[in-house]
Amino acid sequence: MKIMLKASLFVCATTMFAFSAMSFAFDALPEKPPIPKDNPMTEAKIELGKQLYFDPRLSKDGTVSCNSCHNVMASGTDNRPVSVGVDAQKGGRSAPTVWNAAFLTTQFWDGRAATLEDQAKGPILNPIEMGMPDPETVVKRIKNVPGYVSQFKDVFGGKDPVTYDNIAKAIAAFERTLVTPNSPFDRYVKGDKDALSKSAKRGMELVKSVGCTSCHTGPNFSGPASLQIGEGFFQKFPTFNGSKYEKKYDLLADTGLASVTNNDSDKHMWRVPTWRNVAVTAPYFHNGSVATLDEAVRVMAKTQLNKDLKDKEVKDIVEFLNSLTGEFPKISMPRLPDTVGESLIN
Amino acid sequence: MKIMLKASLFVCATTMFAFSAMSFAFDALPEKPPIPKDNPMTEAKIELGKQLYFDPRLSKDGTVSCNSCHNVMASGTDNRPVSVGVDAQKGGRSAPTVWNAAFLTTQFWDGRAATLEDQAKGPILNPIEMGMPDPETVVKRIKNVPGYVSQFKDVFGGKDPVTYDNIAKAIAAFERTLVTPNSPFDRYVKGDKDALSKSAKRGMELVKSVGCTSCHTGPNFSGPASLQIGEGFFQKFPTFNGSKYEKKYDLLADTGLASVTNNDSDKHMWRVPTWRNVAVTAPYFHNGSVATLDEAVRVMAKTQLNKDLKDKEVKDIVEFLNSLTGEFPKISMPRLPDTVGESLIN
Repeated sequence: MKIMLKASLFVCATTMFAFSAMSFAFDALPEKPPIPKDNPMTEAKIELGKQLYFDPRLSKDGTVSCNSCHNVMASGTDNRPVSVGVDAQKGGRSAPTVWNAAFLTTQFWDGRAATLEDQAKGPILNPIEMGMPDPETVVKRIKNVPGYVSQFKDVFGGKDPVTYDNIAKAIAAFERTLVTPNSPFDRYVKGDKDALSKSAKRGMELVKSVGCTSCHTGPNFSGPASLQIGEGFFQKFPTFNGSKYEKKYDLLADTGLASVTNNDSDKHMWRVPTWRNVAVTAPYFHNGSVATLDEAVRVMAKTQLNKDLKDKEVKDIVEFLNSLTGEFPKISMPRLPDTVGESLIN
Repeated sequence: MKIMLKASLFVCATTMFAFSAMSFAFDALPEKPPIPKDNPMTEAKIELGKQLYFDPRLSKDGTVSCNSCHNVMASGTDNRPVSVGVDAQKGGRSAPTVWNAAFLTTQFWDGRAATLEDQAKGPILNPIEMGMPDPETVVKRIKNVPGYVSQFKDVFGGKDPVTYDNIAKAIAAFERTLVTPNSPFDRYVKGDKDALSKSAKRGMELVKSVGCTSCHTGPNFSGPASLQIGEGFFQKFPTFNGSKYEKKYDLLADTGLASVTNNDSDKHMWRVPTWRNVAVTAPYFHNGSVATLDEAVRVMAKTQLNKDLKDKEVKDIVEFLNSLTGEFPKISMPRLPDTVGESLIN
C-alpha cells in the first residue's frame, strides 16, 4: 500500500526542524539498497536487466533505451531540461538520475510508481518516450530475439518466462546495483574528518540550521530513513508562494501529484528528490528550469523556507552538496543479443 | 593519396576469378589492424576515445552519440535500414558496422573518407546525424567539460590540445580496438577442422567457385590484403543491370561514389563492405533495403555475377557467412566526464 506523506513543509519546519536541531544525524549511504522479496538479485538477472536497460529495441523504432535519458555512463541522467524520446518528442519533466534511485521510496517526480519495477514499465509505453504501443508488442519484440529468450528461461524459469513483468523485474534488479558510495561526505561521516573542506563543513551545518534537512533527510537525503519502499515522501513546491522564482522558472505550470490523483490538495506536491550526486545532475527541478546548483539552492531556500540566503551561505551549501558526489562503480559493457530474422525493426 | 580501384567486376570475374580458382587462400582476421604512424595507440588515448564515442554531447542537442548508430554493445550498427539522427531525421544510407572497420581501406559507403580519423569528423557535423554546426562549436563544447580538458592535455600535450583533429584521433584509436577475432571461420583456417559445419564448408567452396571472393577477399573480405589504408576498393553495384531486384530494392536511386566525385564513370560504384559479422548486421546494402541474409546472397549473385543460385546453394553460403561472426571482446563501460557549469546543453 502506498502511503503518501503529505504533511506540509510548514509542519516540517516547526516540528521536525525543532526536533532535528537537537537530534539530526547524517548517515552514510548503505552499499546496498532494499531488495524486494519478490525480486531477489541474481547475477544472471542483473546481467539480463543490464542488457535490457541499454537496449534501444525496447523503443518503437529502436532508437531510445532506458539509458538514453538515464545515462549510467554519466550521472544517471541526460543533463537536459527535458528528455527527447522517439520521433524527437520532448516531455515536460526532467529525467531524474537512476543512480541510487533504489533508495527512493517512490518513483517518478509525481510518485506515480511505488517501485523500480513499476517505474520501468512506464517509459517503454509512454508515447513520447519509448513509444511502444502495448506490453504485448514489447514481449513479442523480446521473444523475437533468441539470445533474450534463453536468458529469460534461465533467470525466471517456467513455461512462458518472457513477460512484461519479468522484463521490469530484470531492469529493476540491474538498477539496484547502481549505487554510488564513498562520497567525501560519506567518508567524513565514517570518521575521515579531512574528507570535507572547511566550506563544506560550514555548508553541512547550514543545511541543518536553515532547515533543508527537514525534508532532505535520511542517507539518500530524500526522506526519513524509516520510510519503506512504496510509502513515498512528498512536499509542496513552492511552499511559500509569491516569490520572483515562480514566474521566472515556471514553477506553477505543472501540478505534480495532483496530475495523478486529480485531488486539489495534491497540487504542486512533489516527491522529495535525492541530493546524492546533485552537483553533476544539472539542470534542476521537475521542469529542469534552473541550470546551476547555486541558483537551485537560492530558489529552494526562498520557496520552501522563505529565506534569502547570503552569497557566502549559498557557496558553503553548494560546497557541501558537491561533497555528495559518490564513487561510480566500474561496470562491464553488456553485449546485446543479436538482431536476427524477425527481430529486425523496420 | 587515395587511389580508387574501380576495375569493373567484369574484369574481376574474368581475370581475378580465373586466378583465384587456383590460388585463392582464406585468411584469419589479424588481432590488430594497421595503426597509422601519426596516431599511435596509448591506453589513455583509447580510453578518451571511448568516452567521446559514447558521448551524446558531441551532438547538437546531446541526444546522439557515435554509438547511437554504430552500437558497440551490439553488432556495431543499429540494425535499422537507415539511422535516426538529431530531430528524428533519417539519412539515406544504412550505418555500417564499426567492428573491424579499422581493416577497411576506405570509409563510408562511398569511400569519401580515407581513414577512421577522417570518418569520425563527418557525422558530428552532418546536419541530419549529430548536427553540430562547425568544428569550433564541437571544440568549445568539449573544452567546457573539465574532465575532458585534463585528458586531452595528458594524451596529446601541447598548448591547445583540444582540437577537432585530436577528437577524431582519439575516437579512431578507440575504434581500432574494435576487432572480433576467432570466428568459427578463423578457427577453421587456423587448423580446427571441426569449427565449420559441413554446410558451411560447402558454402566456403561455393563463395570461391561462384565468384563472390573475387571482390570479398582478404582477411576482412572487403578487398585484397595488399591494399593500404586510404587506397579503397570499389565495385559497381549492380554490375549486371536489368534484374528484378533493381526496382524491388531501389538499387539505382543512389549513385554512390559519383555523389562524391560527380563523375559519370563513378555512378553506382560502392566500397566493397566486409563480410565479418554480416549475419548479425541486417538489414543489408547501402540503403538497408534487404532484411535477410539469404535474400542478400541471392541479390548479389544475380546483380554482380548474373547467377541464379539454387536454394541449397544459398543455404550453404549463408551457413558459411554465419561462421564469420567473431568473438566480441569484453569492454569496460566508460565514465563520461561530468556535465557541470557551462557544459550544460540547453
